[in-house]
Amino acid sequence: MSQPPLSALIAELGSDIVTSDPAVMDRYRFDWARDDRAGMPLAVVRAETAEHVQAAVRWADRSAVPVVPRGAGSGLSGGSTAVEQCLMISTERMRAITIDPGARVAIVEPGALNAEVKAAAAEHGLWYPPDPSSFEMCSIGGNLATNAGGLCCVKYGVTTDYVVGLDVVTADAKLLKLGGIRVKDVAGLSLMKLFVGSEGTLGVITRGILKLVPKQPDTATLVATFPDVDRAARAVVGMCAEIRPSMLELMDGLSINLVEDHLRMGLDREAGAMLIAQSDSPGAARGLEVSIMERVCTELGAKECFVTEDPDEGEMFVAARRAAFQAMEKRGSLLLEDVGAAIPQLPELIDGVAKIAAENAIEIPVVAHAGDGNTHPNIVYDPTDPDSVARAHRAFDQVMQLAISLGGTITGEHGVGRLKKSALPEQLGPDVMALSHKIKDALDPKGIMNPGAVL
Amino acid sequence: MSQPPLSALIAELGSDIVTSDPAVMDRYRFDWARDDRAGMPLAVVRAETAEHVQAAVRWADRSAVPVVPRGAGSGLSGGSTAVEQCLMISTERMRAITIDPGARVAIVEPGALNAEVKAAAAEHGLWYPPDPSSFEMCSIGGNLATNAGGLCCVKYGVTTDYVVGLDVVTADAKLLKLGGIRVKDVAGLSLMKLFVGSEGTLGVITRGILKLVPKQPDTATLVATFPDVDRAARAVVGMCAEIRPSMLELMDGLSINLVEDHLRMGLDREAGAMLIAQSDSPGAARGLEVSIMERVCTELGAKECFVTEDPDEGEMFVAARRAAFQAMEKRGSLLLEDVGAAIPQLPELIDGVAKIAAENAIEIPVVAHAGDGNTHPNIVYDPTDPDSVARAHRAFDQVMQLAISLGGTITGEHGVGRLKKSALPEQLGPDVMALSHKIKDALDPKGIMNPGAVL
Repeated sequence: MSQPPLSALIAELGSDIVTSDPAVMDRYRFDWARDDRAGMPLAVVRAETAEHVQAAVRWADRSAVPVVPRGAGSGLSGGSTAVEQCLMISTERMRAITIDPGARVAIVEPGALNAEVKAAAAEHGLWYPPDPSSFEMCSIGGNLATNAGGLCCVKYGVTTDYVVGLDVVTADAKLLKLGGIRVKDVAGLSLMKLFVGSEGTLGVITRGILKLVPKQPDTATLVATFPDVDRAARAVVGMCAEIRPSMLELMDGLSINLVEDHLRMGLDREAGAMLIAQSDSPGAARGLEVSIMERVCTELGAKECFVTEDPDEGEMFVAARRAAFQAMEKRGSLLLEDVGAAIPQLPELIDGVAKIAAENAIEIPVVAHAGDGNTHPNIVYDPTDPDSVARAHRAFDQVMQLAISLGGTITGEHGVGRLKKSALPEQLGPDVMALSHKIKDALDPKGIMNPGAVL
Repeated sequence: MSQPPLSALIAELGSDIVTSDPAVMDRYRFDWARDDRAGMPLAVVRAETAEHVQAAVRWADRSAVPVVPRGAGSGLSGGSTAVEQCLMISTERMRAITIDPGARVAIVEPGALNAEVKAAAAEHGLWYPPDPSSFEMCSIGGNLATNAGGLCCVKYGVTTDYVVGLDVVTADAKLLKLGGIRVKDVAGLSLMKLFVGSEGTLGVITRGILKLVPKQPDTATLVATFPDVDRAARAVVGMCAEIRPSMLELMDGLSINLVEDHLRMGLDREAGAMLIAQSDSPGAARGLEVSIMERVCTELGAKECFVTEDPDEGEMFVAARRAAFQAMEKRGSLLLEDVGAAIPQLPELIDGVAKIAAENAIEIPVVAHAGDGNTHPNIVYDPTDPDSVARAHRAFDQVMQLAISLGGTITGEHGVGRLKKSALPEQLGPDVMALSHKIKDALDPKGIMNPGAVL
């Protein structure tokens, strides 16, 4: 082989940065999708600077070695699953955060955790809204690479809405500086927005400049239980027709029970569904919005409505929602869905998931960022039972088909990664796929950037 | 030439759609940049459907004829200035607007005016926020093509933040359907966001699906005058450090006087600058925010502060701001700047413009969407005086240089078009330019889409 030996890269960056120790590398093979087809990297580069990333990509480009970028490894679609003999570039050591309160931006390295950015902003009375459920352990780099969403997105938008600048190392090892510290900028093509959500297939993000807003006002919370999930879904549609909640989450009966098993917090095990809704409008508007939520829930047959203006009390219920993923993990292995549709399609989407669960004799607890039509039906299966595995994978595909048939999406916020790649062409169609490949080929002609993901 | 004759296109679409009548075509040669280098089209296609656009692009592709897309022709950077012997595709007849109140989206054809979309949304108690000053006459297609901004963007973001779906006819005459009626979607590369702001260089937008929000609450308005523009700019920085206004506009003394000449509404001709700020927070928060604005203005040396909770009274002052462009046009020919920087750089940017005006012995009245650092220094010149023209063009370039030197942008919301193309490489640098060309070449290998614009 004519490729430069790995020793050349180790010599350039040092053995603390570049490691091929199998015991260490094993920790970098999987993300939370836990895809057992993960390969073993050739080496892991724990970059500390953008220049390290450039050196690693330059070496990979010359060697035609696949590059897999990785943040905190908390992705749910296998976007940072190791490819056999890849160069895994981890940004976990690049964690600097600078807040510019005058310009109201955070300048962040990709390894910084979402929660760290929020905390740094809060020190200046500012707020970085996007809040994936995993915000305490997911990295901003991963958030940028997947265009991550979260709970507050129903009112405050998703990651891409907050990006005003992005540094990216492209497949030719160039460090591009896109956008900058400014709110509005239309100079040239929107390359920055193209890299957001590209899941490492076009380059490695080495810095983000993120718009901040004033800290969130206090929230009032409504918790409503329903005899069945359909009524809850229709209450979501009803609420969204009247107001703009700052959070609107749904848990189905199975999710409620799993969380109750996990946390023992006194949730209603008989409920078919629960909504957790918040308003953060200032002053009297907050109470008014919550009373509208309460009226809609009552009209649509809620069993019980509980309202609190105490943010801490409200946070308890939000914590129940955030714990759903961990609670489900205790039940078995999971295939994590992230399908979405227009809000009026929500009842049909959730009903369809229940039918798929019944048909395949499998449990699919559902939690949802219901206010933006983004649902997480999570398919529970027994990995030691081949029949269970087969039924789970069939259900996984059927749920994606269902979303597509409703004019929705196979992924609202997690990304396509490797797990959902096979369903992407059906959602996008041949022309959009062809255009995506044209762009991929133009930016990464050797196909070294995160091969096997997305496209 | 082997190109299919224009008669083939006329035969396909009809002579009502395709015209080569010079008298008619003359109306399609210029946008509001009024670039006297505009060519004469070969023909104008007044498309009524996406299929008409496809047919026109297919013909142009086979004929290697340049395509210039055009909405309402109100662009300010020459993005839809006719290229000699181009096929001008006007979307002015494609005006359908459908509101889906349950999904909270507007499905709009590109020729619909921004104001028409706002009005259609308002019938359902909904709001489409982006509001270029020209919102009563600019088209949504042009807004999408330039990623247009406006006055409310300081709180509500710009056009791209509201796009959830986009239909585009690409250079190979394919009709791509990107995104759809859903709030969150990360399936595949963000092609949709790449087309927003691409100024017709990658394709012709034939439909947009736009996110709507509940109607804007009532606004309270503060109007403050200052002895000089520096104090006003520093008040902007001060306000933005504390609150998030729903509007924050600045006019310098010259602009105030030109508007007063035009409208005779009793503005303070002695003022060095005026700020018009609004809060639309609900209930008591509105009054609180305006009182914070008032305190900041007073602390920074405002001559006079006037506050009103009456939206109509507030609207009078906003109308003064919106009239600035027309008022300036009465003064002479204009070169319209659209430079921006981070908010803390605003005083320096405005001060630098004043120095450039003095150096070149030329009038440059400034209005600004000050709250997001986006300024419009408009250079007034006498087109019959070659020396005035030369000084104006020198000042135009110097203002862009100034913005770049402050880490800002040559265009915050108007687009690069043809007028600012020469300054773009300096802002973006060679690597970003090279990547932009790679994408352009991948999507439009023959270079037929709006050649001469942006890149």
